Amino acid sequence: MTLCKHAARDRTQAPMDRLSIALADDLAAVDSMLTDHMNSSTQLIPQVAAHLVKAGGKRVRPVLTLAAARLCGYKGEHHIRLAAAVEFIHTATLLHDDVVDGSALRRGKPAANTVFGNKPSILVGDFLFSRAFQLMVETGSLTVLDILSKTSAIISEGEVMQLATANNLATTEAEHLAVIRAKTAALFSAATEVGGVLAGVPDTRQKALHTYGDRLGIAFQLADDALDYAGKAGTIGKDAGDDFREGKVTQPVLRAFAAADDTERAFWLRTIEKRKQEDGDFDHAMTLMEKHGAISGALDDARRYGDEARQAIRSFPESDLRDDLDDLVGYVVDRDH
Amino acid sequence: MTLCKHAARDRTQAPMDRLSIALADDLAAVDSMLTDHMNSSTQLIPQVAAHLVKAGGKRVRPVLTLAAARLCGYKGEHHIRLAAAVEFIHTATLLHDDVVDGSALRRGKPAANTVFGNKPSILVGDFLFSRAFQLMVETGSLTVLDILSKTSAIISEGEVMQLATANNLATTEAEHLAVIRAKTAALFSAATEVGGVLAGVPDTRQKALHTYGDRLGIAFQLADDALDYAGKAGTIGKDAGDDFREGKVTQPVLRAFAAADDTERAFWLRTIEKRKQEDGDFDHAMTLMEKHGAISGALDDARRYGDEARQAIRSFPESDLRDDLDDLVGYVVDRDH
Repeated sequence: MTLCKHAARDRTQAPMDRLSIALADDLAAVDSMLTDHMNSSTQLIPQVAAHLVKAGGKRVRPVLTLAAARLCGYKGEHHIRLAAAVEFIHTATLLHDDVVDGSALRRGKPAANTVFGNKPSILVGDFLFSRAFQLMVETGSLTVLDILSKTSAIISEGEVMQLATANNLATTEAEHLAVIRAKTAALFSAATEVGGVLAGVPDTRQKALHTYGDRLGIAFQLADDALDYAGKAGTIGKDAGDDFREGKVTQPVLRAFAAADDTERAFWLRTIEKRKQEDGDFDHAMTLMEKHGAISGALDDARRYGDEARQAIRSFPESDLRDDLDDLVGYVVDRDH
Repeated sequence: MTLCKHAARDRTQAPMDRLSIALADDLAAVDSMLTDHMNSSTQLIPQVAAHLVKAGGKRVRPVLTLAAARLCGYKGEHHIRLAAAVEFIHTATLLHDDVVDGSALRRGKPAANTVFGNKPSILVGDFLFSRAFQLMVETGSLTVLDILSKTSAIISEGEVMQLATANNLATTEAEHLAVIRAKTAALFSAATEVGGVLAGVPDTRQKALHTYGDRLGIAFQLADDALDYAGKAGTIGKDAGDDFREGKVTQPVLRAFAAADDTERAFWLRTIEKRKQEDGDFDHAMTLMEKHGAISGALDDARRYGDEARQAIRSFPESDLRDDLDDLVGYVVDRDH
């Protein structure tokens, strides 16, 4: 659990890799805690849970909790529990999301609902959610429980909001931002904030960590949604074109639709609202986005949120870890690989 | 919040009605807390939640929490929050259950998934589950959070277990009991136990309350499953014949199957495992159960668990409330209306 590996910091590595190396011991402890706590005598549970938990995700959210706790000088062990709890909440959300969206794939592999069916996905999601709360209880911090139970409610609210905005081009940018903030940024900001809560840093620091997570989460999602139309697969996210095929209303779509002429409006209404798509439609969508600067506009927004994230952690004393969190912002926004 | 109405105790009333009258002020407070906490600016959430929460259920579980707290002399207000939390956990479970089972009806009315679809049912279930934890956090009791987070995990485990036993006549009685204990009795025992925890009574009393809830829950479920074949609708439960039509493996089915001759075995395998049912099959199933004493056997078991529940609360000083909880056992087992 030392930070000695941090001395070997190599700036040619991607920030997530640097963070994973700096926090390697902590992350290994999180991994074994995840394995322990998804266990059950009902064998289907660890099978379904492992399908996602062991799928080799980047563990962005647990890394944020671990990094925030370390940044605040936390010396205990409870950050491991919280990082695992945050990952379980995320996993439960993914399991339910894939059922709700009827997704066939997750991270390029068959989704749990495809492999095991909807029923186990719903129930194992519930199980992991309960396990997350058990882990939080073990930290003995009511503040942490308060933050993460509120966050879980906000995430569900975001998911329900999204049902209404999903294929609806009348969605405003503000409504769309509210969905992103609830669905993605809320868990990012809670993940960083609880690290500070554990360490017992002053409110201003906890708030700074919350702001960092919130803005990073929004930047992450805006960039992810933009990359879906950049013709390249996101590193942490999904395959290019997925959103379009699902008729998902994201910021680039809203921008392109707002700037559209009549023919273009008809195109978006057909492909996104009616989801009647033909060969070549995705290429045409990308052309229209290029024409109206919709992708670069969304990425500019992402960068602005990213700048606010950077600003928020500037109040912390300089350290390799702070630099890595700073670099992570740029990586999240400008990853194109 | 006084118990003065208890003076007007009328033993000709059903015990649930007596308890509801004795705890009327508390129950009204629970109801307004449920309404407050299922609110959200995302309008679909209170709509879906209200469909179940306002459907006029008997509030058995919240009554248990309130009664247990009062029985232990609790004078504060947190038992209202806990009763509401327990009801939210129950409601979340029902929402997810109906999606998993593809149920068209709940308490004789269209189920939420039928009215609003599966997606809102899954997501609003998640929302209510989070709200339950927020309410628990407000009580400031980590012990309560510990008990109810464990209980929630156990309920999900029970649901997953049931996926394997659902149409499987090879299920043992022990496996079936484990499902009942996890799916139904776990929330009953947690509901009563947390009442004692709030009041700060000694461990032995908390354990007695846990045992009362556990045995009452098992008795309740065994009786409910038996009544499904008694040709009468249960008061708190479902319509007669529902389990048979769904091919549900319950204790009377397991008993009748264990005692069956070859022809009868073929009947059960066809109707329960293969779910190929014809007109008259339900009547024939009831005849076979009668022949092998399967219903009366299940009800005898229910009575035995009921006796253990009664035994458990005998350690509490005599009071009208204790008598009502005692009478509730008999009512749960022998209700035939």
